[in-house]
Amino acid sequence: MTTTAATITPDMITPFINAVRQVFQKMVRVEATIQTPYLKTHAGSTYEVCGIIGLSGQVTGSVVVSFSDAAAEKLVESFAGTTLDKTSPDFADAIGELANMIAGSAKQHLGGRASISTPNVVIGSGYTVASPSGVPCVVIPCNSPFGKFAVEVSIKRNAA
Amino acid sequence: MTTTAATITPDMITPFINAVRQVFQKMVRVEATIQTPYLKTHAGSTYEVCGIIGLSGQVTGSVVVSFSDAAAEKLVESFAGTTLDKTSPDFADAIGELANMIAGSAKQHLGGRASISTPNVVIGSGYTVASPSGVPCVVIPCNSPFGKFAVEVSIKRNAA
Repeated sequence: MTTTAATITPDMITPFINAVRQVFQKMVRVEATIQTPYLKTHAGSTYEVCGIIGLSGQVTGSVVVSFSDAAAEKLVESFAGTTLDKTSPDFADAIGELANMIAGSAKQHLGGRASISTPNVVIGSGYTVASPSGVPCVVIPCNSPFGKFAVEVSIKRNAA
Repeated sequence: MTTTAATITPDMITPFINAVRQVFQKMVRVEATIQTPYLKTHAGSTYEVCGIIGLSGQVTGSVVVSFSDAAAEKLVESFAGTTLDKTSPDFADAIGELANMIAGSAKQHLGGRASISTPNVVIGSGYTVASPSGVPCVVIPCNSPFGKFAVEVSIKRNAA
């Protein structure tokens, strides 16, 4: 564990694990398996396609859902029901909508009023994504028939 | 104008223009000049360093503050009072804090309750950032003694 200004507890991460499972089952119609979450200690983007959603309210933070190019392409095909080019706005919209559904499902179980922003979708390679160093960030490594992906949750509770 | 599901009005953009001016004046101690805003019609990141903040509440959306490598380095030096390496967490924190101050200052004048997320900072080159195609996105081109930068505002009002 690194020393951080805020603490993160399992009840802040479990809603995201459940949300990933549910969204993949219902919307993508494949099973997502979850590996052991760990604390992120340095900036970086594991994969090439990231959907980023902001959280605010009694809980403030962000969720980054990150896929390899190959996984993102297969996922979008299954989710949208058609093959989409990575440069198409519909491709980014599909990734953004997936991140939106995961964050939207999780926020209801965060134990406080939280609302979510619209998604931003970053596509490229060799870039890094950093959340504030004073807010703990937990990486949830996931797997699916389309390939591995990761959900990064950086959140803190605000004083009531 | 392209056809979008939501509309964006000048009173939703002016708070961001004023916020950029104020934050640069007070916190970076340089003048930022604002060029004519325009509607963004395709995904893309103009510059290499982006601070991304989510907005939610009666107004939902996101703000992307985007700098060239060179401008970001000079800006962080002036803002933090010391030279910071681009790979340092403090560098990303400084860019994130700047985006946070711009979004935080603007949200008070958006004519509705809005709250902001923590920032994510993307650093790299050749990546694109896309906001949802159903939400209009306005690019505010800016200039400063450190170089050009841009503030991209993608927002919609929610039904009361």
